[in-house]
Amino acid sequence: MPIFEIEEYQQRLAETKKAMEKQGLDLLIVTDPANMNYLTGYDGWSFYVHQGLVVFQDLAEPVWFGRQQDSNGARITTWLKDENILGYEDHYVQSRTVHPYDVVADLIKDKGFGTKRIGVETDNYYFTARCLGHLEKGLPDATITDGELLVNWVRCIKSKAEIRYMKMAGQILENVMDTAVRLIEPGVREGDVAAEVYKAMIAGTPEFTGDYSAIIPIMPSGRRTTTAHLSWTDRTYQRDEIVLLELSGCKYRYHAPLSRTVITGRPTPEMEAISNTVIQGLNSMVDFIRPGIRAEEIEVKWRQAIAGSRVVKESRIGYAFGLNYPPDWGEHTISLRPGDTTVLEPGMTIHVMPGIWTNTLGFECSEAVVITEKGCECLAQVPRQLFVT
Amino acid sequence: MPIFEIEEYQQRLAETKKAMEKQGLDLLIVTDPANMNYLTGYDGWSFYVHQGLVVFQDLAEPVWFGRQQDSNGARITTWLKDENILGYEDHYVQSRTVHPYDVVADLIKDKGFGTKRIGVETDNYYFTARCLGHLEKGLPDATITDGELLVNWVRCIKSKAEIRYMKMAGQILENVMDTAVRLIEPGVREGDVAAEVYKAMIAGTPEFTGDYSAIIPIMPSGRRTTTAHLSWTDRTYQRDEIVLLELSGCKYRYHAPLSRTVITGRPTPEMEAISNTVIQGLNSMVDFIRPGIRAEEIEVKWRQAIAGSRVVKESRIGYAFGLNYPPDWGEHTISLRPGDTTVLEPGMTIHVMPGIWTNTLGFECSEAVVITEKGCECLAQVPRQLFVT
Repeated sequence: MPIFEIEEYQQRLAETKKAMEKQGLDLLIVTDPANMNYLTGYDGWSFYVHQGLVVFQDLAEPVWFGRQQDSNGARITTWLKDENILGYEDHYVQSRTVHPYDVVADLIKDKGFGTKRIGVETDNYYFTARCLGHLEKGLPDATITDGELLVNWVRCIKSKAEIRYMKMAGQILENVMDTAVRLIEPGVREGDVAAEVYKAMIAGTPEFTGDYSAIIPIMPSGRRTTTAHLSWTDRTYQRDEIVLLELSGCKYRYHAPLSRTVITGRPTPEMEAISNTVIQGLNSMVDFIRPGIRAEEIEVKWRQAIAGSRVVKESRIGYAFGLNYPPDWGEHTISLRPGDTTVLEPGMTIHVMPGIWTNTLGFECSEAVVITEKGCECLAQVPRQLFVT
Repeated sequence: MPIFEIEEYQQRLAETKKAMEKQGLDLLIVTDPANMNYLTGYDGWSFYVHQGLVVFQDLAEPVWFGRQQDSNGARITTWLKDENILGYEDHYVQSRTVHPYDVVADLIKDKGFGTKRIGVETDNYYFTARCLGHLEKGLPDATITDGELLVNWVRCIKSKAEIRYMKMAGQILENVMDTAVRLIEPGVREGDVAAEVYKAMIAGTPEFTGDYSAIIPIMPSGRRTTTAHLSWTDRTYQRDEIVLLELSGCKYRYHAPLSRTVITGRPTPEMEAISNTVIQGLNSMVDFIRPGIRAEEIEVKWRQAIAGSRVVKESRIGYAFGLNYPPDWGEHTISLRPGDTTVLEPGMTIHVMPGIWTNTLGFECSEAVVITEKGCECLAQVPRQLFVT
């Protein structure tokens, strides 16, 4: 059974259909695994083969399609009726001659939607160029158009139940971060700390266990901190070395990410200055965030706070996050950067993440916040500091 | 620095260019992170934004393109010259107005290839429908055609160095599988076993630590074993319950996957019969596999071995695997099923995986093998049996 009340899924579906109507879509093919989960509860590691939902404006339930051997997974994890679960035969998998979207095109024709206006998630990882090609070929009389991020934007404002899960993820995260900070020291293998970090993430708390995060623990050291997405190796930590930690707790696919920085020895004056500047900037953003402001205003606040320092930051300083699957816990909707005029509302969740990566070092200190009625609340309580071990 | 000798990368690049020439491609855009790693060593969790390699038939080195903040990752992990690392500006990330493939199109034009024949990986997760759209728009005079799986097929035969890493992954896997079998028992939380499985996968051995696998530990129990890709929850194991284990060791992104089945109590006669049949089928396949046979012949061997039993198996019973990133450790080339006429050669690596998922139960027992000069060798030594705990 899915993890929310069926009414909540139906509410989400109704919101999705409203957005579809605004865009003039008769149906929407949903391939983002997080969007599939959001609308139906579907939760399996089956997104490495083509799968999705077809949301018909005029039909009560979406149709799940996927590989035959995964269809019992849809029966177990979704609220959909059996008649709305369509497993395709195995010879469609990674075939050199046929493609699962041949089956999807047939499904759409069979339902009488072959001449309709169809939205697809054009920039989603799980909707490849070939998916579009087979769909266009199979539905020559349909109008296929862009439905990218339609459901992602519906996901933007979290319900109370969703926030409850994100706070559980936050509890896990506190253990995860504590584990990393406690274990990193010179002479220890990076992989051994990563192993304990994973264990903390999955073992969770005495009350509930955790789930895998959509991004691996990002924990590079030394020179590898000059870039955003390297992680552990099997070398051992050295003295006076920077270690970046971008980690997450995850519960029911809902995340609580956080970044902190550790130094195995004495920070240099440069490092202390960067740390002070970034934490000051982070503090000023967290104090500022509240409903009614625009996303880009948070970035202005950051720039004001770090003005006069030597910190240079040209990439975005945060993004919406929540329910997700690899390769990203970000929702690809709100970005904290110039030009993003999204007005914040209660229930939105943002990772405020002004990561610094220069050609000689890295520094990270972030907060994952949920927008409340009057301000914002951090999902986890971890001191905002440079950790010295 | 990358983990293979530069000569090995150059050899791979030469093979890739040969295959490109056969297909009449002047350049190939490589977006599969495993293919990127294979050709250059690039290894970072940055594939959630658009990135890739452009392999020019006439130029000595490919060009890496990706997000600016990841470009130091390319400097650290690849053998490419600095001039061949192109970081695009951050405002291209998840933008509503511009797209990274605008930059890629400009790069190709700047290099003088704007009217050439360009291959793209049309069904790769990381080459979306929108990537193709922006590329076509930016390169109106080019011929854009299918280069899907071109590098994957080059990857099919592993070098000695690659097999060495896969055997390291196999060593890790033995610990991982032992951990799971040892800890599963009634009353234990599924998530607590998953936590120890992750720890074993990453901590590796006293000689080397491990890496994250491209598929999470798949370890469903009870009713959830009726399908292929569910995993742990935070319930506790019950008595007389089936638990499927599809786990992997991973070293330098090279995998050694394996499936086994545990029962927490007494197997039913039905379960024992299935177990005996599948293991007999698996044995006969492993004994049969050698260079010179066709992939589909292995499936025939399986069907002969299980003939007369009540086991029904309609999906493929194995696939090529090796170097990979989420969401799949499979290489999407060889499938053990009717119609796959690939002739096996030494150095190919295949996960022989005849998973059974009925409407009431699941059973898995597999082997990951490397084809040798005269037969095949298992990457890990784990007894082929139904484990009773």
